[in-house]
Amino acid sequence: MPFPAPLTGVVPPVCTPLTPEHEVDVPSLLRLVDHLVAGGVHGLFVLGSSGEAAFLPDRQRRLVVETVVSHVAGQLPVLAGAIDMTTARVLDHVREVTAAGARAVVVTAPFYTRTHPAEIARHYRRVAAGSPVPVLAYDIPTAVHTKLPADVVLDLAADGVLAGLKDSSGDLAGFRTVVSGVRARPDLTGFSVLTGSEVIVDAAMAVGADGSVPGLANVDPEGYVRLDRLCRTGDRDAARAEQERLCALFGMVGVGDPARMGGNSSALGAFKAALHLRGIIDCPVTAEPQVPLSPEEVERVGKLMAAAGLS
Amino acid sequence: MPFPAPLTGVVPPVCTPLTPEHEVDVPSLLRLVDHLVAGGVHGLFVLGSSGEAAFLPDRQRRLVVETVVSHVAGQLPVLAGAIDMTTARVLDHVREVTAAGARAVVVTAPFYTRTHPAEIARHYRRVAAGSPVPVLAYDIPTAVHTKLPADVVLDLAADGVLAGLKDSSGDLAGFRTVVSGVRARPDLTGFSVLTGSEVIVDAAMAVGADGSVPGLANVDPEGYVRLDRLCRTGDRDAARAEQERLCALFGMVGVGDPARMGGNSSALGAFKAALHLRGIIDCPVTAEPQVPLSPEEVERVGKLMAAAGLS
Amino acid sequence: MPFPAPLTGVVPPVCTPLTPEHEVDVPSLLRLVDHLVAGGVHGLFVLGSSGEAAFLPDRQRRLVVETVVSHVAGQLPVLAGAIDMTTARVLDHVREVTAAGARAVVVTAPFYTRTHPAEIARHYRRVAAGSPVPVLAYDIPTAVHTKLPADVVLDLAADGVLAGLKDSSGDLAGFRTVVSGVRARPDLTGFSVLTGSEVIVDAAMAVGADGSVPGLANVDPEGYVRLDRLCRTGDRDAARAEQERLCALFGMVGVGDPARMGGNSSALGAFKAALHLRGIIDCPVTAEPQVPLSPEEVERVGKLMAAAGLS
Amino acid sequence: MPFPAPLTGVVPPVCTPLTPEHEVDVPSLLRLVDHLVAGGVHGLFVLGSSGEAAFLPDRQRRLVVETVVSHVAGQLPVLAGAIDMTTARVLDHVREVTAAGARAVVVTAPFYTRTHPAEIARHYRRVAAGSPVPVLAYDIPTAVHTKLPADVVLDLAADGVLAGLKDSSGDLAGFRTVVSGVRARPDLTGFSVLTGSEVIVDAAMAVGADGSVPGLANVDPEGYVRLDRLCRTGDRDAARAEQERLCALFGMVGVGDPARMGGNSSALGAFKAALHLRGIIDCPVTAEPQVPLSPEEVERVGKLMAAAGLS
Repeated sequence: MPFPAPLTGVVPPVCTPLTPEHEVDVPSLLRLVDHLVAGGVHGLFVLGSSGEAAFLPDRQRRLVVETVVSHVAGQLPVLAGAIDMTTARVLDHVREVTAAGARAVVVTAPFYTRTHPAEIARHYRRVAAGSPVPVLAYDIPTAVHTKLPADVVLDLAADGVLAGLKDSSGDLAGFRTVVSGVRARPDLTGFSVLTGSEVIVDAAMAVGADGSVPGLANVDPEGYVRLDRLCRTGDRDAARAEQERLCALFGMVGVGDPARMGGNSSALGAFKAALHLRGIIDCPVTAEPQVPLSPEEVERVGKLMAAAGLS
Repeated sequence: MPFPAPLTGVVPPVCTPLTPEHEVDVPSLLRLVDHLVAGGVHGLFVLGSSGEAAFLPDRQRRLVVETVVSHVAGQLPVLAGAIDMTTARVLDHVREVTAAGARAVVVTAPFYTRTHPAEIARHYRRVAAGSPVPVLAYDIPTAVHTKLPADVVLDLAADGVLAGLKDSSGDLAGFRTVVSGVRARPDLTGFSVLTGSEVIVDAAMAVGADGSVPGLANVDPEGYVRLDRLCRTGDRDAARAEQERLCALFGMVGVGDPARMGGNSSALGAFKAALHLRGIIDCPVTAEPQVPLSPEEVERVGKLMAAAGLS
Repeated sequence: MPFPAPLTGVVPPVCTPLTPEHEVDVPSLLRLVDHLVAGGVHGLFVLGSSGEAAFLPDRQRRLVVETVVSHVAGQLPVLAGAIDMTTARVLDHVREVTAAGARAVVVTAPFYTRTHPAEIARHYRRVAAGSPVPVLAYDIPTAVHTKLPADVVLDLAADGVLAGLKDSSGDLAGFRTVVSGVRARPDLTGFSVLTGSEVIVDAAMAVGADGSVPGLANVDPEGYVRLDRLCRTGDRDAARAEQERLCALFGMVGVGDPARMGGNSSALGAFKAALHLRGIIDCPVTAEPQVPLSPEEVERVGKLMAAAGLS
Repeated sequence: MPFPAPLTGVVPPVCTPLTPEHEVDVPSLLRLVDHLVAGGVHGLFVLGSSGEAAFLPDRQRRLVVETVVSHVAGQLPVLAGAIDMTTARVLDHVREVTAAGARAVVVTAPFYTRTHPAEIARHYRRVAAGSPVPVLAYDIPTAVHTKLPADVVLDLAADGVLAGLKDSSGDLAGFRTVVSGVRARPDLTGFSVLTGSEVIVDAAMAVGADGSVPGLANVDPEGYVRLDRLCRTGDRDAARAEQERLCALFGMVGVGDPARMGGNSSALGAFKAALHLRGIIDCPVTAEPQVPLSPEEVERVGKLMAAAGLS
């Protein structure tokens, strides 16, 4: 089965449940995948930011891909992040995750090193040349500290280097430039434009996105699947209402006290706390050096879930 | 032989020569180490930014450490970078480089993930707890996108977590705060404060640095050793003259056309071009996705070397 | 007539035509106002970024407000920017522009000085206390280098300090947080939430914006008025088509060669070139130190206008 | 008497004492000037960042210049900041401050507007063409959000546009590039290179600075004058000891609680609290919207003064 071109629908960036000893909790991961599949999602993206890829050692990354790929057994496309600083290191991850069965890879611009647009393009060209599966660009300036320029993405799409874009930049204007550029070219009908911004999925779909990659879909896959369907059927008012319910639920990413922890600890801590409260994963621990949520902060997660109608 | 406390003198961040096929060029690396040892340097730092650590796959990183450690055979302390995004990944590198014989590790704050000072401290505590050798903090905001706060460094020094600081921030005021904080505490006499800024080594030594980690010392180790000695003997005017000669030579980092490449391509390309022109390494290639210098740009490197009295 | 609460519709940030000698070109300004009024706009915002407020000396600022206010003679609400670094300086501008007849003022967070959220709140409280007319917050991080936090805006709205928000941040997620926060409170029905992002007006309206403040509406007011109407009547597909036409036209902001000028020179130069080509203003000059467009760049503006159906 | 070329020595950026009603406190300002002159300073810089220029309305700025110029009556050169966003606005300030007797003006790159190096150069050329007195560039990236490129400064110096540089960037490497570039050209012997970094004056002098513009010299002018003299006589160890005493005193800028205020409120609040504790100014209030120090924070200022030997 070829990789969907374009990939559409809801493709959650799958969280990586950990044991108290910080090992991958395989049974919890399987339950999480079952929960997402039962929720009706259209694909799975492992080893993204919500999957704590930046925190997982290589052997844990491999275990995650193998576990998820073998469990879904081809029912759904599985994409994997190949997150590392530069070209050769990324290619090592590409080899690992595709050997483990990933059907596409998601790759950022180089980071840590200072980066020029010409170097970003060169990076993607080299990675795509060495990848046996399609390469999607991952635009996440909060992590990478550069914004992927729309013209670079469109040039690489036109040259067949990139198969899609996962945009977590929050910049809907730039996203629209890519969507419009792609839609204007008949040869790019297979290019996937996906938003990673949880709270503007309706807006991204309205400007022409193919689908979404919302971290919060770990917690509420049914909600995002419903939202996706409402966007496709053109029921914009119902879509907006569903999106606003999810926006309120997304408030959980801010429960962590900013005097005590950073945004990653708070957001990933909240997603995992919610999955734990829903009984899907056994342990809400996040990877080091993230700071855990306090019991009061977890309680606030629970209240936001109740307010959004989640048990 | 214990690791020097403090580490003093000139500790070049050793470049990693590559073959045209982008493999580690071991004979060239050995010649480079010989050149540095003959130049009188006081230690070697492998897998730093000048060593292109961010670009090297794990097997190449391991080969670099093994090659250098076995070649110097204990004559000089060898420090190794353990450069990765977060705690568990860094600890994997710590295990690798210490197994290969590194006598200390150099570790940045977490990157890619958004980071809070509490998470930076937690990171260093976990890394130090898992490291068999001393841990030096590496402050390099251009790569990591956070500045290591002086108070965090001093707290971690006081708790025995950090054995030293390599400061590549360019912020002499912050550097001085750490130096003064260390000098004020009798229990921290072994803490090493090293500057990574090539062009203000004289100033850093004057405010109390223990030594320097200048990338340009790959090209001109004798110059930096001379500068170090002049600083120690208090011959400030001669030190300044030597530093200014090295500043002019350092102009090579800007030879690359900014319309065509970023700062890393230009600076590392220049260092390698200079080493190639001096006959020390066989091939000036830099790792992907860096853009190579043009022949005209290499010629400008040669002119700067000639002007600085290097053959 | 009280100031509309909320202010709705299209409120162009009026350009400030200049003579070749860099004086305010009053006849051109009057023609521009007539063009906007004839285009059906719902208000006018003078001395915003598109109005080059940051470039105009005080006497020119005053002349702009007086000219526009007396010309529209109460037909439309006229808002004026009071753009300066800190509280007392802003209050001086508030006095000037309200004496000249402005019906509301638009005020950024403090800039030049480093700013804390507590200081931003204090700033708006002091400004509102000294202003005889409603105060709208102007969120423009590219200029001010801080993002107005949604919770600060909502707190100040709840306290009656702010009457509205003009959001030029490009961050639709943050914009939505303000919209939702305002809609959730019955006492804030009069608070105006306006987007300043030309290319996502349809999306901003769909998430609940009251109106838009698009610089490009200087060039094509009819287009933005049509878009506004289509958004209100719920004809989303026609709205999107109109918005996409305007997005293509907005491409003009990028005509300036980035090797020769910055983004302001290019964008404001393009707006003024377009107004000149349409025969509305006599001279396309922008204020110093902006770099003028070349004839070829102006020609590209003309082609984009023709492609968008503008004469 | 011509303006000194170069200007050398200690040139404090004079604080602006305010009354409880936020008016300029002229008697306190006169006492402060007397205190600085008695301390042996070599010039006075009014309306800089320490002078709260960004906070003062135009009439207060004028009063400050007039007061200080008439009081020093030519004994010392008085420089004035002409701090505003863009060219025409800066030129208005240049006219005001030179009419009031300023002997040179200090001007930043444009801010608020996005700025290209070509626009920065154009700005300085226009300002210098319109200024009856020498123009010094003010490099303060924390305020202006661009770093003045060394090559732009050197080009403008060579063309006679700039008479000097006040560098508050903290980047000693960049500062050194300007110093070396100036020293290499016989025609630029009159160009003044001044550091605005309180804690590395000794280092800046050692790399060749002509003098310093330290905000802390308001509090301890004798200390900075002593430091300047020790640097000139080459007594580097005594200079370093004096500098380290001043560094400890400078710790006062951090007394303000970062949960309650920003860095400006803390630093300027501390300088004014110290001047108040020394009996030089009547009231320590800072301009709006700065947050005042608490009594405990003021007490910490007093302790740092006592530790530094100030009454």
